[in-house]
Amino acid sequence: MSEKKYLVLAEEFSQDPHYGKTLRGVLRYRRESVVAILDPEREGETMDGVPIVAHVDDALPFEPNTALVGVVTQGGHFPADWRALLRECVEHRLDLENGLHVRLRDIPGLSELARERGVELRDLREPPPDLSTATGANLDVDATIVLTVGSDCAIGKMTATCELDLEARKRGLRSVFVPTGQTGIAIAGWGIAVDAVVSDFLAGAAERLVIEGGERGDLLWVEGQGAILHPIYSGVALGLMHGSAPHLYVLCHEVGRKTVEGDATNSPIPSLRELVELHERMSLRTRPARVVGIALNTASVSEAEAREAIAAAEEETGLPADDPVRFRASKLLDSVLTSTG
Amino acid sequence: MSEKKYLVLAEEFSQDPHYGKTLRGVLRYRRESVVAILDPEREGETMDGVPIVAHVDDALPFEPNTALVGVVTQGGHFPADWRALLRECVEHRLDLENGLHVRLRDIPGLSELARERGVELRDLREPPPDLSTATGANLDVDATIVLTVGSDCAIGKMTATCELDLEARKRGLRSVFVPTGQTGIAIAGWGIAVDAVVSDFLAGAAERLVIEGGERGDLLWVEGQGAILHPIYSGVALGLMHGSAPHLYVLCHEVGRKTVEGDATNSPIPSLRELVELHERMSLRTRPARVVGIALNTASVSEAEAREAIAAAEEETGLPADDPVRFRASKLLDSVLTSTG
Repeated sequence: MSEKKYLVLAEEFSQDPHYGKTLRGVLRYRRESVVAILDPEREGETMDGVPIVAHVDDALPFEPNTALVGVVTQGGHFPADWRALLRECVEHRLDLENGLHVRLRDIPGLSELARERGVELRDLREPPPDLSTATGANLDVDATIVLTVGSDCAIGKMTATCELDLEARKRGLRSVFVPTGQTGIAIAGWGIAVDAVVSDFLAGAAERLVIEGGERGDLLWVEGQGAILHPIYSGVALGLMHGSAPHLYVLCHEVGRKTVEGDATNSPIPSLRELVELHERMSLRTRPARVVGIALNTASVSEAEAREAIAAAEEETGLPADDPVRFRASKLLDSVLTSTG
Repeated sequence: MSEKKYLVLAEEFSQDPHYGKTLRGVLRYRRESVVAILDPEREGETMDGVPIVAHVDDALPFEPNTALVGVVTQGGHFPADWRALLRECVEHRLDLENGLHVRLRDIPGLSELARERGVELRDLREPPPDLSTATGANLDVDATIVLTVGSDCAIGKMTATCELDLEARKRGLRSVFVPTGQTGIAIAGWGIAVDAVVSDFLAGAAERLVIEGGERGDLLWVEGQGAILHPIYSGVALGLMHGSAPHLYVLCHEVGRKTVEGDATNSPIPSLRELVELHERMSLRTRPARVVGIALNTASVSEAEAREAIAAAEEETGLPADDPVRFRASKLLDSVLTSTG
C-alpha cells in the first residue's frame, strides 16, 4: 500500500467539493501517495503541492503506477473521452482504480488491454464475492468500535472519521480507520463499499470489516453511511450500525442543514437531541451503544458562528461538540477515550 | 398467471414448517394453481387434496406446466440429485421457478437444455436489472398502504399479510398483496425479493413495488421483511419501511418468542409497546405512520392461551390484537379500515 503512486484523474471537477470528493479525500489523508493530478483545464497549477497535468504523458516523469478515478463523472458513467483516457492509462502500464457504480470490466476491450499490458483493474465498489449474513462474531472483536452516524448523507462523516483516527494515531494509539465507501477505500487501501452489497449481507459485510479492523488495531473508527431517517439510504445506515456492533457513536451534522439533501420529498432532519435518543434506542440490544460526541461541519459559516453552533449543540445534547476539521478532533477524541474507561 | 399449473418440488421437507415455507404458502393462498407435489417419501398421500408423487413422470397425468422449487434445500444449494431432478423437469418441458439464493442459470447445462426444450427458467429472487434509488414517487401512490412489520423474522408476517388481503377481497375491496420475498412472489406471480437487492436500491425497489401495487388496486398490503432490531436483517426491514411509504403498520409477533431466532447472540426481542413506539418514531418524517393492530401468531399454544395472549397484547398496547390465521383477519382489517377513515 505505501508503494502506491497515484495519478488522480480529475477532469472537470478537480475543484468541486462534491464531485471531486475522492480527489480531495486522498489529497487530505493520503497526500504521500499522490504524485500528479490530471485536469486539462488547470494544467500547470498545483493542489497541495501536487502538479496538475493535462495529459497522461505529462504525468509520466512523476512515475505514477496507478491511475485513480478521482471524480464523479456525469451520471456516474464513463463517456467516450473518459474511456479513451482510461485506455491511455492502461497503455502506459498504470493500474486503474475506480469507485463509481459502473465497472471497469464493462468498458469494451479494457480487460483484454489490461491483461496484455499486465496491469490490474480494481473496482473499489465491487463487494467481495464470498460475503454472507452476519454471524455475531462482531461482538467478539477485541477492540473499541466507534461508528460515525449522521443526520444526513454528505455531511462529513468520512472526514470526521479520518480526523479522529489521525488524532488518535498522533497520540500513539493503535487506531484504525475502517472504510465503508469508495473514497475511504481509496484512502486506506482496503474496505468494503457497503451500499453496493446485497441487502441480506449488509450486516455481514460490516461485521467482516470490524473483524478485519480488529486484526489491524484496537481502536476502530468505522465510517458511517447514510442516516437512519434518510428516505433513500436508511437501510444502509441501520445495517451498518448493527453489523459493525459499535460501542460508541459520534453523531455528525452539518450546521444549518434542515432537510435531507438530494431527496425530492424534502424530508426534515430531526433535532440533534432526538437523533441521539433514536440512535441509542435503535442500537443492538446485545450491545447498547451511546453517542459520546457531536461532530459539526461548520464549513459554511464564519468562525464566530461555528463556535456559537458548537455551544448550542452542547447545550441541546449535553454532549461535547466540535468541528474536527476546523478545530481538530482533540475534544471529540477525549470524549471517546473517557467513555471507553 | 391464472393458467399456471404447478408441480411443487418438495423432496424431504414437504412437512417442515420452515423449510417447506414456499410449498405451504402456495398451498394455502394459491391452491387452485397446484396440481401435484413431488416428495418420494410420501408417495400416494395428499396435501389439501393435492396428490403427492415420487417422480416427475408420475405427475404428468395432472398436466403441470411449471415446476416450483417448494422447499429450502440443504444450505440453499442444489445438490447433485436436485440438479438431476431439475433437468428432468426441463426434459419434460416444464418451466422452472426457484426462490433460493442460488440461480438456475448457474447449474451447468441447464440454460442450454431449457432453450432446446423451449421452457423458461425463472429465478424469483433475481432483482429487476434496472432498479435505482428511491425518488419520492412512493408518496404519490393513490392507495392506502399498510406494511406488516415484526418483532423477528419467520413469525408469520407474510401469512398475516395474505390473510388481511383475503379478508379485504372477500369484502369486495380492491385489495392487493404486495410481495417482497420469494414465497410471496410465487403466490402472487409478481414482486421483488427486496433482500436480494443491492443495499443502495433497497428503498427504490420497495418504492417500485407500491407504485405497481397502486396500479393494481387501492388498498395495498405490503409484506414486511426482517425486523428493525434484528441484528442480521434490520437494514432490509428499515429500507422496506421507508421505501414502501406506508400509512399504517400491523405489528406481527409470535407468542412466547423472547429472543431473535437464528441469531447466535440471542438478541432479546423488545416489548410490543416499545416496538410500536419505535416503528412510529422511525417512520418517514414526510409520512408519519401509526401501528393500528397486533397480529399474533399463536400456533404453538392452546386456544385458551391464544385468547389470553391476545387480550394481554391489547392491554399492553391499547391496540386491537388477533391471530389472523386462527381467528381470521376481520378484527385487524376493521382496525385498518377505521384508521384510514
